Amino acid sequence: MIWGEWLAAKAADRAERGLTRRLTPRAVDDPTIDLAGNDYLGLAQDAAVQMAAAHAALTWGAGAGASRLVSGTLELHAELERELASYLGQPTALVFSTGYHANLAVVTALADPTCRVLSDAHVHASLIDGVRLSRARVTVVPHNDVDAVRRGLGEAAEAGERTLVLVESVYSVLGDAAPLAQLADLCEEHDALLVVDEAHGLGVHGPGLVASNGLAGQPHVLVTATLSKSLGSQGGAVVGPSTVREHLVNHARPFIFDTALAPASAAAALASLRLLRERPQLSHLVRRRVGELAGALAVEVPDGAVLSVPLGSPEAALAAQAAALEAGVRVGCFRPPSVPDGISRLRVTASAGIEDDDWRRAVDVLQQVVKEHR
Amino acid sequence: MIWGEWLAAKAADRAERGLTRRLTPRAVDDPTIDLAGNDYLGLAQDAAVQMAAAHAALTWGAGAGASRLVSGTLELHAELERELASYLGQPTALVFSTGYHANLAVVTALADPTCRVLSDAHVHASLIDGVRLSRARVTVVPHNDVDAVRRGLGEAAEAGERTLVLVESVYSVLGDAAPLAQLADLCEEHDALLVVDEAHGLGVHGPGLVASNGLAGQPHVLVTATLSKSLGSQGGAVVGPSTVREHLVNHARPFIFDTALAPASAAAALASLRLLRERPQLSHLVRRRVGELAGALAVEVPDGAVLSVPLGSPEAALAAQAAALEAGVRVGCFRPPSVPDGISRLRVTASAGIEDDDWRRAVDVLQQVVKEHR
Repeated sequence: MIWGEWLAAKAADRAERGLTRRLTPRAVDDPTIDLAGNDYLGLAQDAAVQMAAAHAALTWGAGAGASRLVSGTLELHAELERELASYLGQPTALVFSTGYHANLAVVTALADPTCRVLSDAHVHASLIDGVRLSRARVTVVPHNDVDAVRRGLGEAAEAGERTLVLVESVYSVLGDAAPLAQLADLCEEHDALLVVDEAHGLGVHGPGLVASNGLAGQPHVLVTATLSKSLGSQGGAVVGPSTVREHLVNHARPFIFDTALAPASAAAALASLRLLRERPQLSHLVRRRVGELAGALAVEVPDGAVLSVPLGSPEAALAAQAAALEAGVRVGCFRPPSVPDGISRLRVTASAGIEDDDWRRAVDVLQQVVKEHR
Repeated sequence: MIWGEWLAAKAADRAERGLTRRLTPRAVDDPTIDLAGNDYLGLAQDAAVQMAAAHAALTWGAGAGASRLVSGTLELHAELERELASYLGQPTALVFSTGYHANLAVVTALADPTCRVLSDAHVHASLIDGVRLSRARVTVVPHNDVDAVRRGLGEAAEAGERTLVLVESVYSVLGDAAPLAQLADLCEEHDALLVVDEAHGLGVHGPGLVASNGLAGQPHVLVTATLSKSLGSQGGAVVGPSTVREHLVNHARPFIFDTALAPASAAAALASLRLLRERPQLSHLVRRRVGELAGALAVEVPDGAVLSVPLGSPEAALAAQAAALEAGVRVGCFRPPSVPDGISRLRVTASAGIEDDDWRRAVDVLQQVVKEHR
């Protein structure tokens, strides 16, 4: 059996390299303090957000029942899109069932084999998959290397190519920010379009780093976002000019051929957005905690809510993760090959949603664990 | 502005060909009878399913908070996967945030450039995108052509290629079923893997056509499904051998790099699954309605819940759709280029969820409208 043998060989290879991944279901009353997820503001567990999700399921239905272009677009989606655009300072938004789809949609609907894509070396899998699907000519640019982007844009402009530049506002693994202002200037100068994934910027920096850099609403800057991190729900969005939105509605396959986002998820994201608007202190709290944790663990303060704590070896990282879990704190662990620089590390997320007492305990536990395993 | 001009040219081209698509948000109290969506059993609007979604949002949170491999796997997901596998008669299931992702995941994690893919000409966009991403060598097989699949499998076996065959159990546009028993025999004989998308089969035919053909649990047959059609929720699943599930957990990018399915959607799908198990009459009712509607509209009885009503021209199809809506019944309309055979048609969905009185009214309206526009 050729498939059976192939699957067995792949499994053996994973096992031999110590890379087998397993799913560990979480119980509803799990007392572990979670510093592994991406619920940066704790809004997935906020009572008002949960109530909004529940109310929408009871009012609108458990599912949207159809794709957006058939009969799946609810006034709830339209409301979410208006408020999302408004909060981010952009003209329009279009919501997708996942952030992955928002990124696939933007790249595949805008890029084609006549197009040049300059893609930062650390962008998310969904942007990379979008580029592959688009069959555009891609240049992977060294991480945050403005000079390399400038050279790439110069070459593309000379060849008369339509050009997309793909970056994230804050990168997940290293936690560093993109030089957005410089990149936006370069794109304007070279008539290129800058696509900024705000997955890890939105909420942690209020309306995101595109907005705080004064770039919101500029025609050569396009934002993608996820509703499943700071907004505590599920889904994704593309936020920018109405011409792009109309183009995506008409041409983006992951939009056209997918069931609309479930009412509960749309309503939860909308409730979170309203909370975020009312309580900018949520963003301040998570950033203060990031600073506190970085101090305790003696690492640089990242631009996002995720701290990267380099450890000496994959074994040390795994042992530190296990010791933290034993002490009641869940953190992530990144080992090769899933890190861009080959360095094993703990991935620790600060969240505004953790109670003060739990937060202090988590900081103490991690300080101790990292000291012992560094 | 090169991008502005390009977007404007695309928009002008759409407008000139009469193909501009627009979103029409639906109000919560919209009185229209919906025969356009894919809520085949009416479970998106079932009170028990809605309550399950609401309860899960309040119990588990508005979002899962992380990807499945980090801390996003809830016992709720595990329960849904167990019951889904059990209902479909398969060993295991793995849940995704959309059906689109389930298909992308299967193809990209199993196929690679050394692999041969035989893909039916009518399969869903998500399977086509999966093949493109995988960079496998693909042969598009004429729709439901068993001889062509046999020839393709023979050639692939001779070349020693690992081969995937991609089909749907019931096709969305034409509503016809795949010759699953013959295809499964051929795949067994040639050591190939048959991937069957049950998006439109599950629920309408109880546990789906793979199960009713006695093919569930066979090692060379793999099922993908969506939770957003008959199950009235959002999400997708791959259902089959545990070796495939483990492989997807470790290698499928749309699984690894995506936030887990929202608790409300997972719980709604689980509640629907239980209802479906308790009430096989739901499947009988939708199929009886399909037969009734096909009789009234003088078209062949399809294998799924979607009727295809060919009309003479794109204009006639649009006019018929508008007349039905005017009379309170929403149906879909397919025109070139989004139909595989170039024939404009109404797309009418039967659903077990419509009240008897509304159903009779809808049948009368459509019978009249089709008579006038045929």
